[in-house]
Amino acid sequence: MPESEKDASATVSAAVLIIGNEILSGRTQDTNLNHIATTIGAWGIQIHECRVVPDVEEEIVTAVNALRARYDYLFTTGGIGPTHDDITAVCIAKAFAVPVIEHPEIAALIRTREAPPDIMESRMLMARVPDGAGLIDNPTGGPPGFYMDNVYVMAGIPRVMQGMLSGLDGKLKRGVVVQSRSVSAYLGESQVAQALSAIQDRYNNVDLGSYPFARDGRYGTSLVARSSDPQLLDHVLSELEAMIREAGETPFDQF
Amino acid sequence: MPESEKDASATVSAAVLIIGNEILSGRTQDTNLNHIATTIGAWGIQIHECRVVPDVEEEIVTAVNALRARYDYLFTTGGIGPTHDDITAVCIAKAFAVPVIEHPEIAALIRTREAPPDIMESRMLMARVPDGAGLIDNPTGGPPGFYMDNVYVMAGIPRVMQGMLSGLDGKLKRGVVVQSRSVSAYLGESQVAQALSAIQDRYNNVDLGSYPFARDGRYGTSLVARSSDPQLLDHVLSELEAMIREAGETPFDQF
Repeated sequence: MPESEKDASATVSAAVLIIGNEILSGRTQDTNLNHIATTIGAWGIQIHECRVVPDVEEEIVTAVNALRARYDYLFTTGGIGPTHDDITAVCIAKAFAVPVIEHPEIAALIRTREAPPDIMESRMLMARVPDGAGLIDNPTGGPPGFYMDNVYVMAGIPRVMQGMLSGLDGKLKRGVVVQSRSVSAYLGESQVAQALSAIQDRYNNVDLGSYPFARDGRYGTSLVARSSDPQLLDHVLSELEAMIREAGETPFDQF
Repeated sequence: MPESEKDASATVSAAVLIIGNEILSGRTQDTNLNHIATTIGAWGIQIHECRVVPDVEEEIVTAVNALRARYDYLFTTGGIGPTHDDITAVCIAKAFAVPVIEHPEIAALIRTREAPPDIMESRMLMARVPDGAGLIDNPTGGPPGFYMDNVYVMAGIPRVMQGMLSGLDGKLKRGVVVQSRSVSAYLGESQVAQALSAIQDRYNNVDLGSYPFARDGRYGTSLVARSSDPQLLDHVLSELEAMIREAGETPFDQF
């Protein structure tokens, strides 16, 4: 695992790959992307892309190779259980062109819980990892996830994934943390569009977003500024508040 | 817009492209993929892939061209408002190598609501569509979405996107509808893995998924069978129920 480093000037990029037919069919609402984004965002790692693919080997291998080459980290969720549709370990091994092995540490962990031979055999499928993989601790008690180079392979069940991810704190490269400030007003997006664009033009290093909302039958807009420079953000926030007052409304915090 | 067709033997494929920094930063939890999946699934259109990309022209254009070439339909959400970060129309035009035009029908609609010149100018940005685009009705009262060949461009706000999508009912190619049956039991995945795999081997045209859950402090597994053949699904469901009883548990409906 890469050692933890702190380099305040560096940006660290990531992609997320969500593996599972159940997300694409609509059976399951994904929440893993959102949790990973907020968690690693606080570590200074920014997600640049996410893909959701089905439990199909070729699709998974292609996506893994496209994303691991392009970003500092790739986090995957799903497909590491003991049933026939759990093919992530095999796919990661194919992506890296290495064999799948039975990891002795996971196998030993699985053997501590007794079971009939056929059940034990199924459980042992969760000990399969690509040759050369390291382990990601699973604080919920089940088998660990694993990492291979810059690819971190976690469970799909949110509670288990969250436990695995929390254990990575301090073990990944840290980039500069992107902070955000937001302010809202009962103004339509069209009412602020030109002034907002002018502010964006003056602050190249700030990412300004505009998000309409409806509350209590009234329409409003939330303005979000994101940057790694807190002082710049304070300036931008003042300008956004002044812009709202100039349009005759009162700025308020996002609810 | 392609005429509605019914061909019970055909499968119709789709991808979803979610455009927006706010999803990747974790500010906003996406729910659009799930809604699109369940809605078009009932029309016989299956989502094979989803990507989430930031508000960056090159990323959007690349993803649009990759996905529209590969699947029957591409549905996009986000980036069609009046502010500087709304660049979807321009990106779709680039992807198709056509100019952006001001659509007379949208422009006329926007002019029906009076506004000062600068606000009207911003609103008119929502009349921009790629040359040759058709319109997607917006029942929530705002400007319409648009489609260009097999690419359907909708708003990011869930309520507005849902309204736009509902109006597409009957206007898209329909494929065979994939149905699902599910059954659950208080059995771990490892306890059913081998029997489940044997059932999957006997039914090539059924997609069998296994999803662990925890309820009231007990662990269980939900088994989901998906296929376009209802009779086959009935057979598989019986086999799954028999498998659960053989393991000493009682099958129950997914909660």
